[in-house]
Amino acid sequence: MAESKIPYKIYLDEHEMPTKWYNLRADMKNKPAPLMNPGTHQPMTAEELGAVFCEELVQQEMDNTTPFFDIPDEIQRFYKMYRPSPVVRAYCLEEKLQTPAKIYYKFEGNNTSGSHKLNSAIAQAYYAKKQGLKGVTTETGAGQWGTALSMACSYLDLDCKVYMVKVSYEQKPFRREVMRTYGASVTPSPSDTTNVGRKILAEHPGTTGSLGCAISEAVEVAVSNPGYRYVLGSVLNQVLLHQSVIGLESKIALDKYGVKPDVIIGCAGGGSNLGGLIAPFMGEKLRGEADYRIVAVEPASCPSFTRGVFAYDFCDTGMVCPLAKMYTLGSDFIPAPNHAGGLRYHGMSPVLSQLYHDGYMEAVSVPQTSVFEAAEQFARVEGILPAPESSHAIRVAIDEALKCKETGEEKTILFGLTGTGYFDMVAFEKFHEGKMDDYIPTDEELKAYADKLPKVD
Amino acid sequence: MAESKIPYKIYLDEHEMPTKWYNLRADMKNKPAPLMNPGTHQPMTAEELGAVFCEELVQQEMDNTTPFFDIPDEIQRFYKMYRPSPVVRAYCLEEKLQTPAKIYYKFEGNNTSGSHKLNSAIAQAYYAKKQGLKGVTTETGAGQWGTALSMACSYLDLDCKVYMVKVSYEQKPFRREVMRTYGASVTPSPSDTTNVGRKILAEHPGTTGSLGCAISEAVEVAVSNPGYRYVLGSVLNQVLLHQSVIGLESKIALDKYGVKPDVIIGCAGGGSNLGGLIAPFMGEKLRGEADYRIVAVEPASCPSFTRGVFAYDFCDTGMVCPLAKMYTLGSDFIPAPNHAGGLRYHGMSPVLSQLYHDGYMEAVSVPQTSVFEAAEQFARVEGILPAPESSHAIRVAIDEALKCKETGEEKTILFGLTGTGYFDMVAFEKFHEGKMDDYIPTDEELKAYADKLPKVD
Repeated sequence: MAESKIPYKIYLDEHEMPTKWYNLRADMKNKPAPLMNPGTHQPMTAEELGAVFCEELVQQEMDNTTPFFDIPDEIQRFYKMYRPSPVVRAYCLEEKLQTPAKIYYKFEGNNTSGSHKLNSAIAQAYYAKKQGLKGVTTETGAGQWGTALSMACSYLDLDCKVYMVKVSYEQKPFRREVMRTYGASVTPSPSDTTNVGRKILAEHPGTTGSLGCAISEAVEVAVSNPGYRYVLGSVLNQVLLHQSVIGLESKIALDKYGVKPDVIIGCAGGGSNLGGLIAPFMGEKLRGEADYRIVAVEPASCPSFTRGVFAYDFCDTGMVCPLAKMYTLGSDFIPAPNHAGGLRYHGMSPVLSQLYHDGYMEAVSVPQTSVFEAAEQFARVEGILPAPESSHAIRVAIDEALKCKETGEEKTILFGLTGTGYFDMVAFEKFHEGKMDDYIPTDEELKAYADKLPKVD
Repeated sequence: MAESKIPYKIYLDEHEMPTKWYNLRADMKNKPAPLMNPGTHQPMTAEELGAVFCEELVQQEMDNTTPFFDIPDEIQRFYKMYRPSPVVRAYCLEEKLQTPAKIYYKFEGNNTSGSHKLNSAIAQAYYAKKQGLKGVTTETGAGQWGTALSMACSYLDLDCKVYMVKVSYEQKPFRREVMRTYGASVTPSPSDTTNVGRKILAEHPGTTGSLGCAISEAVEVAVSNPGYRYVLGSVLNQVLLHQSVIGLESKIALDKYGVKPDVIIGCAGGGSNLGGLIAPFMGEKLRGEADYRIVAVEPASCPSFTRGVFAYDFCDTGMVCPLAKMYTLGSDFIPAPNHAGGLRYHGMSPVLSQLYHDGYMEAVSVPQTSVFEAAEQFARVEGILPAPESSHAIRVAIDEALKCKETGEEKTILFGLTGTGYFDMVAFEKFHEGKMDDYIPTDEELKAYADKLPKVD
């Protein structure tokens, strides 16, 4: 079909929607390293993982060989409530930039959680329900994952306990109210409701929290309450599996119009969106069927890929979770509180870490002010107010499009617009008032954290 | 096509989108009464209206005979950025209610303004730009219209001055920030920046404002600044014309699947959404081609249709605007501040008022707590957190579906889901904490306001 016939928004019909998730690991030569028992330094068994996670999710977590998993009917049905999400051709942004590049974005923000997180939330809640559990616990940073999980649990009638990073809890008072609308309980973290929370508070009075702290608290509550398990919105292999629906839909939509991206760009905190967006494209790359430039974008304030170490580390600050081999800044690392959004995690998906280590993708870090500049520019021409997380990808997509303007190349760019910024107006206010800072950790700081990594091998 | 094949969401293809707006007035036997000069009590001339409104919009305002107006290419292009909006089959809500009714809703919330208001905002901004103006002024209540206009002006590079009802300005601090992101200036109303604002403040110190006050201020600024005109998000005939895109899209989508609604339900503040949603259906009804039950839902706190008077009244509190013949509570009427949302207007669209007066539609008023109960119930099963305004329609749609459950009737219900409630979390918080009141004005109160209506005829 002629390029000019490409609509502003490509929506799949329901019958075109994926019915299976794609497990990228099946096509990786070097598999991601297994989760390790923090005490014995031996790979975690399914039984050990089952104390923390639902049974079926443990299987998904450990399976490095099965390429496709059927999406259960009930989850497919839930997906139809808010999916398919559109692949949007950014005609207005292209015109504004006067670039010969063709820019597409997969927009995951058209649901009340405001992001792609709902794709995995409903899956994890479904398996918890199937196992007959009473409820689940989790952490949330920017609040999108917590909202998504609240929505999924409300739909399936499961209890939902959310530990929310304190800085976000304070910056985003209305997020709590949305979660309450969906019947969840929300506690700012670190809190005095857990042993690990009390310990962190004693050691770091006045801390604004981190995803790592909140994970420790949520895990403690899950393992100490019968009928509860812990669920996580990113980092884990199972989450990337569920999020593959983003990339699968994107590929079907672009294939319909004969469009092949040259560059695929996604923001990366724990890696859930990026891992999902790139899944089928990376699969082709791993199988030698096609080539794509794949770019992870992270905040300069929390640069796991670009300045971290590829090593086993704790997934949480309280060191109650298994060890994962990943690019990490150290589980003690707490990003500057002034920095917005859900990309404040010290580590990175083991799957993406392995792929980055093996040279299948690039990474770039960007300072916060430039991210908000891109966000505002995008909002004004494309009509969508993007989340700060998503705006990292916008920043680099715009930069790539401007390079094309210089060179005259007609590259096709696909980026992940993971969500909307409606609950991030405190950050936008800081930006408008020039009060946003661009703090970047020094080499000495990063080295001090890296020196404390656990010794494994 | 078999009913069971109806997808969760019906999206039109781009080539199916309407290219003309439909002017309901062309099919009305009794035309809406003309706007009247408040001094002479004679119908406003195009020249007089041109001092306040853009030229082409004045033509649209006064045209009671032309059935269709071409949608200019640039507006069609902007529409493609966020439209078509889906017609959603509420399968999950139907199942939850265990009703034989089939429930559909036209969802207008998937854009950053959060509502249908963008449909008219871009049109009004476009004609202002075409006329070579510098900018526009307006009022906003809940903030959706102000946001929509900011987005449209930012896209077309027009200045945008917004007067925001003080109670909303205070309840919705982040709305201001969204408007700033789109480059608008926002002033809480009443303010000391206008003569009429200072007068209202002197007479009613501590007032929380109303749409009527804010309109007066915005009009004053428009007529006293060269290169500016005033634009309005509801009530006016031109706005209903632009909003007909909602109903036209809905009808095309339902016709594709052979679905004919029995009942069409919309919330009504000034009437922009309801007038747009019902336009082509009401057209068929007026021409005797089909019959539909059409229901306007208004808040019990501000019951223009159900307890107001059909008479000429001022559109604004400051009495600087033309007189309109409409159902009104009196231009002095200020609803209880505790009541949420954008349905706080004392009057009602003259087009809808005439249709209601002539028996073509029904109206019902609902108390606020029951509206938020419906909102929460809807959010939990349909995944969308609705705006308080929209939730009035949800309340009545659920009530109708529950009646079908009792009678066993398989009615088809279509309602307008005008927008999302992401910026209404203060109201949801009140609801969760049991602090919401259901104040309903007494007959004596309403009579006192009605007695002050201007004497025309």
